[in-house]
Amino acid sequence: MTRVVGTRERILTATAELFRRQGYNGTGLKQVTQAAAAPFGSLYHFFPGGKVELGEAVIRSSGAAYLGLFELIYDAATDPASAVTDFFDAAAVVLEETGYLDACPIGTVALEVASTNDRLRRATDDVFRSWIDAAAGRLADAGIASDRADELATALVAGVEGGFMLSRAARSPEPMRVTGRLLRQLVEAALSPPRGSARSPGRGRRASRRS
Amino acid sequence: MTRVVGTRERILTATAELFRRQGYNGTGLKQVTQAAAAPFGSLYHFFPGGKVELGEAVIRSSGAAYLGLFELIYDAATDPASAVTDFFDAAAVVLEETGYLDACPIGTVALEVASTNDRLRRATDDVFRSWIDAAAGRLADAGIASDRADELATALVAGVEGGFMLSRAARSPEPMRVTGRLLRQLVEAALSPPRGSARSPGRGRRASRRS
Repeated sequence: MTRVVGTRERILTATAELFRRQGYNGTGLKQVTQAAAAPFGSLYHFFPGGKVELGEAVIRSSGAAYLGLFELIYDAATDPASAVTDFFDAAAVVLEETGYLDACPIGTVALEVASTNDRLRRATDDVFRSWIDAAAGRLADAGIASDRADELATALVAGVEGGFMLSRAARSPEPMRVTGRLLRQLVEAALSPPRGSARSPGRGRRASRRS
Repeated sequence: MTRVVGTRERILTATAELFRRQGYNGTGLKQVTQAAAAPFGSLYHFFPGGKVELGEAVIRSSGAAYLGLFELIYDAATDPASAVTDFFDAAAVVLEETGYLDACPIGTVALEVASTNDRLRRATDDVFRSWIDAAAGRLADAGIASDRADELATALVAGVEGGFMLSRAARSPEPMRVTGRLLRQLVEAALSPPRGSARSPGRGRRASRRS
């Protein structure tokens, strides 16, 4: 039983790594089973729907793992604004240390499938939404009004994705770091609104937007 | 002569359209010549280096065209801050009107090739850099210090790319619009620094960073 579970996990891990490097269309199933040191038949045993089913499982599991990483960094940060730069800076370090390979696990695939495979597009949308919800919930807990927290969270996820794209293209950590520094200022401004603006901490309590 | 030029242009246009929809790896050369209504042999006539040479030409020509679009919108805007939301809102409208097909011409390819083809990676980096330089130059002309203008321009390009990704995944214009509204606030803040901060308009004059 352990071995069977292990093979499925190895296939998921190897596929996630290949998606990161070369995307969905650039990754072949033979390459996956070779990288996972798994017999070719095992792929259809665990993913009878083939590449699309495997792709969806990788998108969702990678998305959940990355969400956990965000939560870990956020909860270790001294305050919400520092959490923003901590996260962007950590992503910049990982990019540098891995030769600009280890980026967002689903960004490349999200663009590839957006207009070509609706099942996979929905999976990437669910993952992005889960990240936005997690960030928005924490910003709301810090006292930012719910609508504003959701907007900030959306811009943060967009900024991370764009940061990955520009930093990988330039092979430089700077675009990621710079984007994080600027977005941090928006979070700081939302936490300390200018005098004269109405700020009702009570509205910071954020009801789940998805029932 | 007109006909020969026409064929090359048709191949570039058709390839750009296919890259937008399905990326570099998802696009085959037969598909390109069919979409361009061009004989298969003409592709190697105009692009003897095959798919990589065609890919580079498409990245650079699409990048230049998109730069022109940015300049058009910027120069028509009433002020630099409005130019930001004008651009993001225009992108959101085009996304909606084209069923989320007509997005950044090079974003998908940039992620696909970042770790797999250095010639194409450099081409995407050059294009991103040209966009950042164009936006930074205009922000510096508006009185923002050169370093700050470059940072803002980097975050703007990252935000547009992330906005395309999230809006296409969600099939909603909102992520693009929201990101534009928030980034506009950063430009507004840079144009009106809080009292007490040193602002030297003289530094707004921006020397070319690339000699």
